[in-house]
Amino acid sequence: MFIEIDFNSDEALYLQLRNQIILGIALDEYHEGDALPSVRQLADDIGINMHTVNKAYSVLRQDGYVKVDRRRGAFIAVDSVKEEHLRGMRERMKAVVAEAVCRNVSKRELHALIDGIYEEYGLE
Amino acid sequence: MFIEIDFNSDEALYLQLRNQIILGIALDEYHEGDALPSVRQLADDIGINMHTVNKAYSVLRQDGYVKVDRRRGAFIAVDSVKEEHLRGMRERMKAVVAEAVCRNVSKRELHALIDGIYEEYGLE
Repeated sequence: MFIEIDFNSDEALYLQLRNQIILGIALDEYHEGDALPSVRQLADDIGINMHTVNKAYSVLRQDGYVKVDRRRGAFIAVDSVKEEHLRGMRERMKAVVAEAVCRNVSKRELHALIDGIYEEYGLE
Repeated sequence: MFIEIDFNSDEALYLQLRNQIILGIALDEYHEGDALPSVRQLADDIGINMHTVNKAYSVLRQDGYVKVDRRRGAFIAVDSVKEEHLRGMRERMKAVVAEAVCRNVSKRELHALIDGIYEEYGLE
């Protein structure tokens, strides 16, 4: 599992970790059923606090990307789309659009940004 | 200043506060030069910790939406677009696109989502 954390970023570490794991799922690097490292293991590997990893796993579980099994530990399990998950995504998109509007980034430019990201990810 | 905080949301309170203030700027409710409430005032009004408000203001300052003046306190001041601010926005958009890909939301649907948000905000 390749996780890239930017310690200079404003973004909270647990959110970076959450987003990197979601990106890994999106890019087909992590698959349904794949075990996540134990909290201790990942904390040691990245050099962050166990609480931070715990928080990331817990948010991933709430957001429907991960399940936790007493025997197997945490593993990838993407929930079938639920209205509440889409709502969360919409809320995060609204925050990005608000930033874009403040910066005079047009709707058309946001479309182009999205297309560029899909391309960067090698997706249609 | 109308700030809506969802205490049941997964999203960190300081991020909700940051996003609400950016949304206020985007919607032309807060204007260049408008003073933000003092940290203590806003913390009291919303019923959250002063540290949380402080963190939100500090992130808004780093992201180029707010300046702090010893005499006037914090006030709205949107930086002319700097590469680093656009980079932050792009990173946040990449995280949302990764979620969309995991949920089988297509590029076209994301475009439509953005158009819907602009419409909801009453923007072109």
